[in-house]
Amino acid sequence: MDYQSIINEIADEVSPLLKDGKVADYIPALAGINQNQFAMSLTLFDGTQFSVGQADTLFSIQSISKVFSFTLALKFYNTDLYKRIGHEPSGNPFNSLVQLEYEHGKPRNPFINAGAINVTDALINHYGTCKTAYEEVLGFIRAISDDESICSNEIVAASEMEHGYRNLALANLMKSFNNLDNRVEDVVGTYFKHCSLEMSTKMLSRAMLYLANDGVDPILGVTYLTPSQSRRINAVMLTCGHYDASGDFAFNVGLPGKSGVGGGIVAVVPNVMGLSVWSPGLNAQGNSLVGTKALELFTDKTGLSIF
Amino acid sequence: MDYQSIINEIADEVSPLLKDGKVADYIPALAGINQNQFAMSLTLFDGTQFSVGQADTLFSIQSISKVFSFTLALKFYNTDLYKRIGHEPSGNPFNSLVQLEYEHGKPRNPFINAGAINVTDALINHYGTCKTAYEEVLGFIRAISDDESICSNEIVAASEMEHGYRNLALANLMKSFNNLDNRVEDVVGTYFKHCSLEMSTKMLSRAMLYLANDGVDPILGVTYLTPSQSRRINAVMLTCGHYDASGDFAFNVGLPGKSGVGGGIVAVVPNVMGLSVWSPGLNAQGNSLVGTKALELFTDKTGLSIF
Amino acid sequence: MDYQSIINEIADEVSPLLKDGKVADYIPALAGINQNQFAMSLTLFDGTQFSVGQADTLFSIQSISKVFSFTLALKFYNTDLYKRIGHEPSGNPFNSLVQLEYEHGKPRNPFINAGAINVTDALINHYGTCKTAYEEVLGFIRAISDDESICSNEIVAASEMEHGYRNLALANLMKSFNNLDNRVEDVVGTYFKHCSLEMSTKMLSRAMLYLANDGVDPILGVTYLTPSQSRRINAVMLTCGHYDASGDFAFNVGLPGKSGVGGGIVAVVPNVMGLSVWSPGLNAQGNSLVGTKALELFTDKTGLSIF
Amino acid sequence: MDYQSIINEIADEVSPLLKDGKVADYIPALAGINQNQFAMSLTLFDGTQFSVGQADTLFSIQSISKVFSFTLALKFYNTDLYKRIGHEPSGNPFNSLVQLEYEHGKPRNPFINAGAINVTDALINHYGTCKTAYEEVLGFIRAISDDESICSNEIVAASEMEHGYRNLALANLMKSFNNLDNRVEDVVGTYFKHCSLEMSTKMLSRAMLYLANDGVDPILGVTYLTPSQSRRINAVMLTCGHYDASGDFAFNVGLPGKSGVGGGIVAVVPNVMGLSVWSPGLNAQGNSLVGTKALELFTDKTGLSIF
Repeated sequence: MDYQSIINEIADEVSPLLKDGKVADYIPALAGINQNQFAMSLTLFDGTQFSVGQADTLFSIQSISKVFSFTLALKFYNTDLYKRIGHEPSGNPFNSLVQLEYEHGKPRNPFINAGAINVTDALINHYGTCKTAYEEVLGFIRAISDDESICSNEIVAASEMEHGYRNLALANLMKSFNNLDNRVEDVVGTYFKHCSLEMSTKMLSRAMLYLANDGVDPILGVTYLTPSQSRRINAVMLTCGHYDASGDFAFNVGLPGKSGVGGGIVAVVPNVMGLSVWSPGLNAQGNSLVGTKALELFTDKTGLSIF
Repeated sequence: MDYQSIINEIADEVSPLLKDGKVADYIPALAGINQNQFAMSLTLFDGTQFSVGQADTLFSIQSISKVFSFTLALKFYNTDLYKRIGHEPSGNPFNSLVQLEYEHGKPRNPFINAGAINVTDALINHYGTCKTAYEEVLGFIRAISDDESICSNEIVAASEMEHGYRNLALANLMKSFNNLDNRVEDVVGTYFKHCSLEMSTKMLSRAMLYLANDGVDPILGVTYLTPSQSRRINAVMLTCGHYDASGDFAFNVGLPGKSGVGGGIVAVVPNVMGLSVWSPGLNAQGNSLVGTKALELFTDKTGLSIF
Repeated sequence: MDYQSIINEIADEVSPLLKDGKVADYIPALAGINQNQFAMSLTLFDGTQFSVGQADTLFSIQSISKVFSFTLALKFYNTDLYKRIGHEPSGNPFNSLVQLEYEHGKPRNPFINAGAINVTDALINHYGTCKTAYEEVLGFIRAISDDESICSNEIVAASEMEHGYRNLALANLMKSFNNLDNRVEDVVGTYFKHCSLEMSTKMLSRAMLYLANDGVDPILGVTYLTPSQSRRINAVMLTCGHYDASGDFAFNVGLPGKSGVGGGIVAVVPNVMGLSVWSPGLNAQGNSLVGTKALELFTDKTGLSIF
Repeated sequence: MDYQSIINEIADEVSPLLKDGKVADYIPALAGINQNQFAMSLTLFDGTQFSVGQADTLFSIQSISKVFSFTLALKFYNTDLYKRIGHEPSGNPFNSLVQLEYEHGKPRNPFINAGAINVTDALINHYGTCKTAYEEVLGFIRAISDDESICSNEIVAASEMEHGYRNLALANLMKSFNNLDNRVEDVVGTYFKHCSLEMSTKMLSRAMLYLANDGVDPILGVTYLTPSQSRRINAVMLTCGHYDASGDFAFNVGLPGKSGVGGGIVAVVPNVMGLSVWSPGLNAQGNSLVGTKALELFTDKTGLSIF
């Protein structure tokens, strides 16, 4: 398939929509970004990349980091992880406390905020300190991206912490149910550092290859997960990857994926490629408006849906 | 692949679990069934069938009928259908009123009870009368099963109606929000008649072929849906097909599917086959306990997950 | 105290507010009413009445009827009534299904719709038929009002039934939890007939005397309730009498009372008098806007708060 | 009335129930208390006191402190206070986050935890520092008790803080909605210091006199509130003073009151007296089991209900 032509077409078709989204403005460090940006990258198993737009521009990966921290937690804890986190869609906004209270402090899945904070807590337990947990997740992301330059934006991390009252509420609520082991501020601070990592669509499409290939990096040959674990992460991305628009994404795009409020989205076509799109304007559900549309066009044009 | 050996193995492995589930007992007509039964059938695109267990025994398809009524509604209304029904997972039990009230009478998806009742209402609008709506759904199911013998169990239908207060509550609540056009009793009665159809796993695995083949019956060549519509039904089955255990099913089985309280489950392997399992004992989420396990074993043994 | 001067003053002071409320328009039979009306009546223990405004005009008592049906149910069932209905404030709108579902079909109190429907069901059990239950409540209201002319508006009753889907949803939900004994349509129909009784503020202020006097009609000397039962009805009026504005009413008025969407409110000053006000424009919580204000002014001017 | 004989009788009658409650055990500092204790005190307007049981024993007043901090906040902010806190019953447990989230961070009333934390925040604003806010509330309580010996138990305060995750969650959630001005830890810490004050039933029954007397201390003649403010506090105690058993307390006791998890309850008979009971075993709703029963017996025996 002529992927380059296809993504060029997509870039043209989504261009009129760039003005429609709304950039995340809950922290000043994200609010200033120019909305009129778009990038899309594909990486095949042999390393071939196709890109369009600002595919080298770094942006805040935000909740996309949840995929990577979940990968490490699943690797170390396997099914024991499900004692503290579920894997069901939530049917609620990403940061709601309602369901967390009704379900006694056990987050529905690792991709809502409460779940990702809980995953971070599990990683701190495993690695011993917040610093090591942060560094090991960073090291893992650098490894799967094959890029040692990736690092976090400290201004974004600090700004998140300063405005992170709802996440602190979620963490305190889990703590009140004895479902969080470390200090609330430490866990949430570590979580925010992962969220504030900056990557480009080129890096992210490369990073997703292990999930398109049953847990094994197809270029470097490194095994990160068992096939079963890898497929299960894809299943959770499909059912829970886009908050309260997960069904919509499955319905319209038909690929496992995960979005972040920085405007990035990652996805996989099993056995074929890793993908990433970026455009900072968000739709009402908090997912990249243009990015979602671009992925819909991609599966329409290529027929590469898992369904 | 040697499908017959695989399903024989599965039948052996699940056999000790037959005693663990709990037969649906909310109506007398279902409560009396012998729990110690199991069947599994696969149908390939050329019509080849593999079966194990009581694969000719008829059972109440119950909520599996929601797939077929949704198919017809999507065919006739296409995206207009989403004005009255969403396609997001609910995060709540299948018959909860809470979310329906918060969301002003618009059901989350066509596979929770409120959604399927609403789909039935849309079909009554389209066909003009309850009787025709019932007959056309029946006719469609007979066509995709290539079996004119299929019919409903009137005792089950009457018994459902007699104990259907919660479904009447759901329908009245939608009516109070002007999201139901026909008489409450008529719509719910028609819905129950579809639920009380009786089929075997052989019939059901045959009936699912059109959803494994982008909307076209691969044996008879009849086109029912566009590829896009067909894939979208699969996406909704994956995210919403098993009530509050949909994430669990995606996670552990990894195939689009739909369960019913009669103990049946249908699923598709896109481009490969239709499947059906049946065992009347249910797990805590109301899905066939042994049936779910059998499908997990099937994807483990064959690697035929969509992820 | 010069009650006549006080209520004349009140009528003057509330007059500019008459245009601010919003007449109930959920059924045509109520929607047509002229908003520019106001009446207020007090009845002392010796039968002396003070009135201002259209105090002889009949209006639909609506939820005020819940006080009288609850009185009879408490008389016949005493504490057994609390097996089926609670006496806690709901913290939710008057017709919400959320709490009723979470609490397994047991209504929070007899003054939300679900509770009053349940009270009606208990009265049908006691009296044997819907017809007798209706007639006995009517007979009781005529007795405490000392007025045989009171009757129901059949057009309003029929119109309620025609648009009563939410109440039918509540009743069906209770029925699904086995907390309703008679046919849903029969119970809701009987409930609506009580709601559609028409009375004036003169009649209603007279009717409340038994609750101001520990269960005994101070004029005719008839005993309806024990002192303890009578006080408990007052307590429920205070905590639950105005739906989700009950705290506001207790806070600003400080008297046990009950409102109806027809714009009427009844209240008692224990040991002193029965009161009623009427003005059809409602505030955001569904209580008479001007009526609530008039009662606030009344306790401000007289100091007759129970606190 | 022979109050001494009445409370002696009550002490005898409740004695067999002392074993039935359950001492609060969420913090070690409270868990160790001997359950077999009871005290009851009445204080009349001339200072006459009647007591039975361990009426000089100091116990942790816990949520009873909410009455006193609310008094000061109402005094300084008057109706402006209602921009940040409502005065409706909640229909939920005292520390639930559900309603707080649905209602955008505005607590239902000043007597649920979120509301009392918010009141503390308002007092910190008024007084400038946490230290002053704490000291002024303490000073107020000493003044209305006419007892300079009252002080807080630092071990209890520290223990509360150490286990106060749910309260921290509530405070962070309000902060995320911009309905909390000061630092979360500071506000919650100050709130806990008020909760950890220790008083006896003699002190508390004396302290309530200003609320029984329209805002004026009847012994010392000091005016704390306007009559209207004082009555409104009584109204909020009646509708919201006992969490999710407030309706029950109004129904069975019929007096404005407030309970604490330390086993204390305060109440007022308007124009007559202040009361306090104490017994550390709690019922299922978190109110003193024996204390509630003792107050029921008191109003039964004396007829001193406000209804």
